[in-house]
Amino acid sequence: MEIGLIGLGKMGGNMRERLRRAGHTVIGYDRNHEIADVGSLTELVDAFTSSPRVVWVMVPAGEPTRDTVKELGQLLSAGDVVVDGGNSRFTDDKINADLLAEKGIGYVDAGVSGGVWGLQNGYALMVGGSAEHVAVVQPFFDALKPEGESGFVHAGPIGAGHFSKMVHNGIEYGMMQAYAEGYELLAATDVVEDVPGVLKSWTQGTVVRSWLLDLLVNALEEDPDLDEIKGYVNDSGEGRWTVEEAINHSVPMPVITAALFARFSSRQDDSPAMKAVAALRNQFGGHAVTKAAKVAAEAGAGGPGGTVDS
Amino acid sequence: MEIGLIGLGKMGGNMRERLRRAGHTVIGYDRNHEIADVGSLTELVDAFTSSPRVVWVMVPAGEPTRDTVKELGQLLSAGDVVVDGGNSRFTDDKINADLLAEKGIGYVDAGVSGGVWGLQNGYALMVGGSAEHVAVVQPFFDALKPEGESGFVHAGPIGAGHFSKMVHNGIEYGMMQAYAEGYELLAATDVVEDVPGVLKSWTQGTVVRSWLLDLLVNALEEDPDLDEIKGYVNDSGEGRWTVEEAINHSVPMPVITAALFARFSSRQDDSPAMKAVAALRNQFGGHAVTKAAKVAAEAGAGGPGGTVDS
Repeated sequence: MEIGLIGLGKMGGNMRERLRRAGHTVIGYDRNHEIADVGSLTELVDAFTSSPRVVWVMVPAGEPTRDTVKELGQLLSAGDVVVDGGNSRFTDDKINADLLAEKGIGYVDAGVSGGVWGLQNGYALMVGGSAEHVAVVQPFFDALKPEGESGFVHAGPIGAGHFSKMVHNGIEYGMMQAYAEGYELLAATDVVEDVPGVLKSWTQGTVVRSWLLDLLVNALEEDPDLDEIKGYVNDSGEGRWTVEEAINHSVPMPVITAALFARFSSRQDDSPAMKAVAALRNQFGGHAVTKAAKVAAEAGAGGPGGTVDS
Repeated sequence: MEIGLIGLGKMGGNMRERLRRAGHTVIGYDRNHEIADVGSLTELVDAFTSSPRVVWVMVPAGEPTRDTVKELGQLLSAGDVVVDGGNSRFTDDKINADLLAEKGIGYVDAGVSGGVWGLQNGYALMVGGSAEHVAVVQPFFDALKPEGESGFVHAGPIGAGHFSKMVHNGIEYGMMQAYAEGYELLAATDVVEDVPGVLKSWTQGTVVRSWLLDLLVNALEEDPDLDEIKGYVNDSGEGRWTVEEAINHSVPMPVITAALFARFSSRQDDSPAMKAVAALRNQFGGHAVTKAAKVAAEAGAGGPGGTVDS
């Protein structure tokens, strides 16, 4: 069957390949014309030989996705279905769906997990939308999903796919931080001599075995002390949205929130909050403060760490 | 080969069976004589037909393990090796090892993971001790561990096995809480209609797939809203020890600590801390407080929740 695919980056490019291996005809468009099959969205829509048309949008969340949906709204016809497979915030889905619904064009939101391993293992899919629209896209979902009975869910109405993917990513933050804290404690002690060996041993038979653990073991095999990597971690939005939704629903979320905030801390060269705590200890107890590097350098002192805090 | 096994409960009983299936001769002792092969530790030690003897202790941590080690110290001979496979705190291992070393008896600590699934899948083993003593026990480790190249590690000297198992369990607390918070948020919203279906879909192809997720999916298949289970969670010590070691080594551990404290909160009928916060809001802002059930009952009011907090 025919499908249009907009956005052929790391995810979209591999998805095109997986769809083609399953026998589908993929009409791919990308701003980078070298990797695209057609030169414009108009050409993409015109290239279909049958209808209804299914067009899968795989571009960055926010403005790029909104603009693409708007343009598709002008090109597609009633009965066609647009899938947003990007990492959109679930609150965007209703807006995008309403834009298209004016012309009778369907909309399905799809949270997609699998990263660079998806081409080989399949992409886990969480989708939201009406049963009618999901059914139109189902042959492509079946091609993209992993083999086996799991890896796909029609989670609910429009927004349910991206909501589920958002929560998935929030859980991922918490799990990653849990492994990371355990790793740091193992590495901090003299008792355990083979830290990478301990983590590797956990990959079979234990309660904590998981795909994320496998990846951490891979990373430690390449770089046993993680010497090559700075402890600086970005976030791409889904963790924040998860915590914001927890606040909206008054759901206690101590672990996922702590994992998100640990990433914020990792990006600070020097913490204003901890400067304030150090200042307060000095104010009430006369505890020594460690001078900021700038001040220490001006005073000719040994830099931060030169002053021992009692 | 011959091995003595002390403690034939849920874990020890299945381990005896897995060792026997591998062709080993297991001499099992338990306080419950109905399931034991011998009637006393003396009989257990005398039943060996060759030496060095290996005796695996699988009894509760603390006093029971210490008492068993002491008794074995009086019965065994130089060259024999005692394995503590219980959930002992790693700081106990040095003490137990020293007790036995006086008589030339070896000691190996083994963290054992796998629970009720271990008989079938094998037990993941993290062990500490000298290379010489570990080698004596290795045939039994090989029988107990899962098939494949992982599931066993000689992590370091005495204590390293239980230290690794302690950290493993701490990570487990954080992972469980991350899944649990995600589950609660999914269930709290109207957007996602099929919460068990979403979790089940995650078991293939996603970043958060894991054995713990599989177990949560099982639980939700049996009881989709977890109606049968109260949100009350015990802890068996290893999470506390992990956080205490983090404090000893000044390792930041926000996620595992939050997961431990969430369990403490789950066991409170009414939180003194939150009573204090409610009292303070009332003091400075005149915010209404929700009456304790006792007071509400005496006043003939509608009970807790009857007063709406502004």
